[in-house]
Amino acid sequence: MVGMASRLSTKPPTGFRDFLGTEAVRRKQLEETIAKAYRSFGYLPLDTPALENLEVLFGSGGQDNEKLVFKTLKRGEKLEKAFELGKSTLGGSDTLGELSDLGLRFDLTVPLCRVVAQYQNEIKFPWKVFHIGPVWRAERPQKGRFREFMQCDVDIIGGSSRGVELDVIQAVGQVFKELKLNDFKLHINDRRLITAMAKRFGFGDKISAFAILLDKKDKLDPEKLKEEFSNLLGDKISKDLEKILEGQVSLDKFEAFDFETANELAELMAHLTSLETGFSEIVFDPSLARGMGYYTGTVFEVRHSSVGYSLGGGGRYDELIGRFLKNPMPACGFSIGFERLLLFLEEQDQALDTQKCIFMPVFDESLRLELCQIASNLRLAGLSVDLYPDSAKAKKQMQFANDRNFKWALIIARDEIQSGQYKLKNLETGDEKSYTPENLHKHLLSVF
Amino acid sequence: MVGMASRLSTKPPTGFRDFLGTEAVRRKQLEETIAKAYRSFGYLPLDTPALENLEVLFGSGGQDNEKLVFKTLKRGEKLEKAFELGKSTLGGSDTLGELSDLGLRFDLTVPLCRVVAQYQNEIKFPWKVFHIGPVWRAERPQKGRFREFMQCDVDIIGGSSRGVELDVIQAVGQVFKELKLNDFKLHINDRRLITAMAKRFGFGDKISAFAILLDKKDKLDPEKLKEEFSNLLGDKISKDLEKILEGQVSLDKFEAFDFETANELAELMAHLTSLETGFSEIVFDPSLARGMGYYTGTVFEVRHSSVGYSLGGGGRYDELIGRFLKNPMPACGFSIGFERLLLFLEEQDQALDTQKCIFMPVFDESLRLELCQIASNLRLAGLSVDLYPDSAKAKKQMQFANDRNFKWALIIARDEIQSGQYKLKNLETGDEKSYTPENLHKHLLSVF
Repeated sequence: MVGMASRLSTKPPTGFRDFLGTEAVRRKQLEETIAKAYRSFGYLPLDTPALENLEVLFGSGGQDNEKLVFKTLKRGEKLEKAFELGKSTLGGSDTLGELSDLGLRFDLTVPLCRVVAQYQNEIKFPWKVFHIGPVWRAERPQKGRFREFMQCDVDIIGGSSRGVELDVIQAVGQVFKELKLNDFKLHINDRRLITAMAKRFGFGDKISAFAILLDKKDKLDPEKLKEEFSNLLGDKISKDLEKILEGQVSLDKFEAFDFETANELAELMAHLTSLETGFSEIVFDPSLARGMGYYTGTVFEVRHSSVGYSLGGGGRYDELIGRFLKNPMPACGFSIGFERLLLFLEEQDQALDTQKCIFMPVFDESLRLELCQIASNLRLAGLSVDLYPDSAKAKKQMQFANDRNFKWALIIARDEIQSGQYKLKNLETGDEKSYTPENLHKHLLSVF
Repeated sequence: MVGMASRLSTKPPTGFRDFLGTEAVRRKQLEETIAKAYRSFGYLPLDTPALENLEVLFGSGGQDNEKLVFKTLKRGEKLEKAFELGKSTLGGSDTLGELSDLGLRFDLTVPLCRVVAQYQNEIKFPWKVFHIGPVWRAERPQKGRFREFMQCDVDIIGGSSRGVELDVIQAVGQVFKELKLNDFKLHINDRRLITAMAKRFGFGDKISAFAILLDKKDKLDPEKLKEEFSNLLGDKISKDLEKILEGQVSLDKFEAFDFETANELAELMAHLTSLETGFSEIVFDPSLARGMGYYTGTVFEVRHSSVGYSLGGGGRYDELIGRFLKNPMPACGFSIGFERLLLFLEEQDQALDTQKCIFMPVFDESLRLELCQIASNLRLAGLSVDLYPDSAKAKKQMQFANDRNFKWALIIARDEIQSGQYKLKNLETGDEKSYTPENLHKHLLSVF
């Protein structure tokens, strides 16, 4: 083991990240902010294992996900047996269940469905639940795409009225409120309107292809988009569809396609608009389909004009959980794009308080005990204090304080203890001022 | 996929756990309490990937850990290549690097060492750092032992004076203070005293066997323990060692074995005793060795008289990180036994506030919007409000409130809105009282 440094890579594995210092603080603060918002609406936390049985992971979404999953090797006797059994068939790829039995979850939806099925007799429905945690995907790493990233899901399971959508969307809006972020728009649509549109315009036998094409609206040039629709239809598309693709049609026009859905959506939008949800605008977006095939009703997405990506989205999925249960189970959820939101916060240079901590050097080791006591008292008053833990020259300690970007240093040597006047130094300006212990507490609480 | 329920197990994998509702709340609250305590001392958070390269995992602790690690299968071309290469050698066990390349971390110490090596030029030393997160061990599951569990480490890297121990121990004590738990004792010793003892009593060539035997002191009958020491020595043990094993010897007697270490430890203990650390007693325990071979100096452990297990421990390990670096790097850390502490809190029935939330039923759907607004205002005042999201009969909603153990229900129907008198019901006693909106806020803030 000695001399290992020369040959061992100490980088995290490709596609994975280490988080230190300020970056780690920001992540934790965002996580706590989201959890706080959801809790204020009565949502209960959920936590599930990183590893799931492979049947659970693959059962829910077909074999599409197989390549995404980090599978773990079986262990001990089971591995020996698998090698024995598999000797003849091994080659090229691992057949399910041969060498591996568990896999890292690739989203939080599959575990949620499993949990609802497993604890259906204990859970009180409608279940307002949130789940924040990492997921893993064995994708080829690329810029902004990682193999381990956070997901933040909030869901209501077992409620079918539009009050459910209203609650979930408000809870997500609360997150943006807490972050004091403005100008976020909520785009909203209903999958049933897409189905009705598809039927009306001759795509009745190609509904999912129609939806997929709609989702491309913001990425394709309008002419190119119309062309693709024509290709799909095998004919020229109608003027009415063209108008929709050009964004010229308001929600009331959709009453002609599906009266009830259009009306319900209009009411939901009116409610959301009149409440202070944290969104600056509620936008009807007939081209919003959301990729996942499991949505059955309302779909929504959070957007901001300054970035090209969505910051979260979700919708109603009334049939997915039923696949794990014997009975149907309506559900509606929202997933905040945690990594994208962090990126957004960084781009906005939004100041999160990452360094609300006072630095205390120890210039005289024989005073350490007294300084510990002073630090304890400050902590009792709710302040954070970093007392330099090691023995080092004064210059080195003050250099450390600068390197760590502390703003305030509380300097107490023997003179200060004897005079009862503690010296507070602003490390940004270099200004020093002395305070009695009582005034110091008051002053520090006022500047933080 | 339809009908899957009949064959698919929806349990978490063997040895893994789901956390719902109150249990999940308690875990999050404990995690946040620990983080808050460490932050108040200026420790910075660290987060590292769940998966590490196998060389990193095995390099640090030898092959001992190989059986503990959940290894992930290689993917795509690399897996194909491994099968091709391995065809002749496959059988019985997987050779390192053949089929797998990554593994789930089995502790937080290995990632910490890797991180120090990787970012040594960016980190400001002494680095006060904490890391809370899950680790995974492929052990045979048994009562109280899980394959996924939380670890909470706090460390100071790059400081060699005893001020480091003082800071780490105070920070951990702060956690027990925040939890308002009393009667926790800190047992303390120094590995160098064990080495000195071993040499003094004739075990100079069997120091680690001597330490391992010492660690068994609390588990073995005193006579049996003496016998085992005699067996190890191949001779009758001295009266002085017998006295130590009987716990009759105070720290000052150890000055004869290693003057400097005994003196330093005495000073550290005096400091800890005079500070209000959150520990009820600081106990010199010459039999405390702590299992891990990497400790080089002070070792410590948290105990409580009501439970037989330790609730955390740690010590100084000045040589471990040096194995990843080219230069030596002193370090000292403390790990709280998160799962055991949770168990302890449950046994003590320590009330964490898991249900500080007001229930609001919606008896009349046409009032939902107004109730949403009332709920929003209460949240603005810092309260949590769970508005029933679905349409349901009044009786069903109140049954839900009881099942979920809400204490307070805020009942507002058309009459209450018209009269401006909101009805607050105590669900435990059945008492109802009406309040104006202004008085309601004040009252609710006073009862929570």
